[in-house]
Amino acid sequence: MAELGADFPTARAQATDLVRAHLDDILRLPEGGEKRLVDAMRYAALDGGKGFRPFLVLATSQLFDVAPSQAVRVAAAVECVHCYSLAHDDLPAMDDDDLRRGRPSLHKAYDEATAILAGDALLTLAFEILADPATHTDSEVRLSLVAGLAQASGKAAMVGGQMLDISASGSALDYGELSRLQGMKTGALIEFSVAAGALLGGAEAAQTEALKAYARDLGLAFQIADDVLDVTGASEVLGKTAGKDREDDKATFVSLLGLEGARQEGEQKAAQAEAHLSEFGAAATPLRQAAQFVIHRKN
Amino acid sequence: MAELGADFPTARAQATDLVRAHLDDILRLPEGGEKRLVDAMRYAALDGGKGFRPFLVLATSQLFDVAPSQAVRVAAAVECVHCYSLAHDDLPAMDDDDLRRGRPSLHKAYDEATAILAGDALLTLAFEILADPATHTDSEVRLSLVAGLAQASGKAAMVGGQMLDISASGSALDYGELSRLQGMKTGALIEFSVAAGALLGGAEAAQTEALKAYARDLGLAFQIADDVLDVTGASEVLGKTAGKDREDDKATFVSLLGLEGARQEGEQKAAQAEAHLSEFGAAATPLRQAAQFVIHRKN
Repeated sequence: MAELGADFPTARAQATDLVRAHLDDILRLPEGGEKRLVDAMRYAALDGGKGFRPFLVLATSQLFDVAPSQAVRVAAAVECVHCYSLAHDDLPAMDDDDLRRGRPSLHKAYDEATAILAGDALLTLAFEILADPATHTDSEVRLSLVAGLAQASGKAAMVGGQMLDISASGSALDYGELSRLQGMKTGALIEFSVAAGALLGGAEAAQTEALKAYARDLGLAFQIADDVLDVTGASEVLGKTAGKDREDDKATFVSLLGLEGARQEGEQKAAQAEAHLSEFGAAATPLRQAAQFVIHRKN
Repeated sequence: MAELGADFPTARAQATDLVRAHLDDILRLPEGGEKRLVDAMRYAALDGGKGFRPFLVLATSQLFDVAPSQAVRVAAAVECVHCYSLAHDDLPAMDDDDLRRGRPSLHKAYDEATAILAGDALLTLAFEILADPATHTDSEVRLSLVAGLAQASGKAAMVGGQMLDISASGSALDYGELSRLQGMKTGALIEFSVAAGALLGGAEAAQTEALKAYARDLGLAFQIADDVLDVTGASEVLGKTAGKDREDDKATFVSLLGLEGARQEGEQKAAQAEAHLSEFGAAATPLRQAAQFVIHRKN
C-alpha cells in the first residue's frame, strides 16, 4: 500500500478507495438468508461517502509512520460507525430523510427493519475490526481504540448528541449549547479519527493534544459549513435534502449567527484548526488543506 | 460480594440483583438533555429481565474462581446487548410488540427514536464495559471478550438471526434451518455468556468446549420452550404478547414437531445440556438446574 498523496483531494480519494477495498473484503456476501443484511451493510458503508473520517485516520497515522495496513482497519471501523449513524438518523422515526449521498437512504432502498439491523451490525463490526490482532500488535493499543471508539459513539457523545438534536428541535439553543450538541453528535467521532492515528503511532502526549485541538476546531468548522450549505446548497449537489434544518425548526449556526456571521465563524475555526498543526511541518499539509476544504466544499 | 447460591433460583436472583446494581451505578442520570436517553437505557436494561444470561456468566465464572467484581462487568455487558436487541426487535418496523416483561415495550414507554438510540447506546456501552481494565487485568482476555461479544451479536450471529427471522416469516423452514436461525438469533449470545466465564477464569480448552456444548443444547432447549410457551402461555404470565408466532405465520419448533413433540425435544436437549457438565461435579449444580428451568418455566 502506497503513501497517501501530499495534497488533500488526492489523499482523501485514496483513503476512500483503501477503506472501501478493505470493507469490500470484510463484507463478503454469504450464501444464506443473511445476504440481505450484508447487502444492506455494503450499500450503507461502501458507496458514495466523502471519506472524510477515513482520510483523517490515515493522514494522522502517516504523521507517525503507522503501517497503512493497520491504519486502514481503524479507518474502516470509524467508517462503519459513521455509516451506521447515518442509516439510523435517516429513519422515519428520527430525521426522516429519504435521500443520502444522492441515492435513496438505506431504509428507502431496503426497508426500515433492514436499515435498523444493518446499522446495528455495522456498529458491532467496528468493534470486531478493532479487537482483531491485525489492527495493532500491542493489545493495549487495540483496547484503547475499542474504548475510545465506544466513548466517541456512545451515550455521552454521538448517540447522546443525536438525542439532544431530536429533543432540541424547535427550541432555542445558544451558541454554547449548539457547540456542545455538535461536539457530541459529530465532533467526538472526528476527534477519535485523529486521535486514533496518534494512538496507533505511539505519539507523545503533547502531539496527541495538538491533534485533538485541531480536530475539535475542524469538527466545528465542518458543522458550521454544513449549516451554511443547508441554506445555500441544492439537494442535487448536497446529495441529501437541502433546507431540512429550517423545515425542522432546528437551531443552527446560521440561525444563531446569520449567514455571513456563520461563514466568518467557520473560517475562523478552520484557521484555528490549522494553527494547531504548526509542529508537524510539511507532513501535515493534507490535514491543513482539509480544514480549508471543510469550509469551502459544495456538499 | 458473596458467592452465588448453590441452587438455580437463588443464584439467578442474585445474578439479576448484582447486574442491576452494577448497571445502576454505570447509568447515572446526567443533568443535561441526554437524561431522556439514559432514562430509556435504564428502563430497557434495569427492570424486569429474567437475568438468565447474567446468571450464566456468573455461574460459569464461579466454576473457575473468577473474581465476582470482574464477572459482574461481563454479565452487565451481555445484559446490555440482550436488552438492546429486545428494544430493537420490538420496534414497529420489526416484530411490532407493545408488551415486554409485563410493561409497555421501550418505544411505547418513550418513542421510536428514543428506543432506537437507547438500543444503540446500550450496544456501544457493552464494549466500553469490556474494554475497561476493571473487567480483567489481562488485556488479551479483555480483547477476547470484545471480539467474542462482537461475533456473538453481529451479522453472522444475533443480528443475522433476527434478519433471517424477519425474512423467513411465512416461509417453510425445516428443523435444521430453524435450529440454525435460533442458534444465531439467541444461541450465540447464550454460548458467549458461558464461554466468557471460562475465558475470565483461564479454563482449559476441553472445559471450555464442554461448556460451549452445554450452552448450545441449553440455547435450543430455551428456544423450544419459548415456542411452546407462545402456544400454551397467557400474555399476562409471559409478560409479552402470546400467540405472536402463529399470528406472524412464523415457523416454530411447535409448528414443525407438534406441541408434544416440541416438549419432548426440549427435554432431550436439556438432558443433553446437563450431560456435558459431568466433569464439573457439584459446583455445576446451578447450571444443571438452569437446564431444567428453561423447559419447565412459565414465562
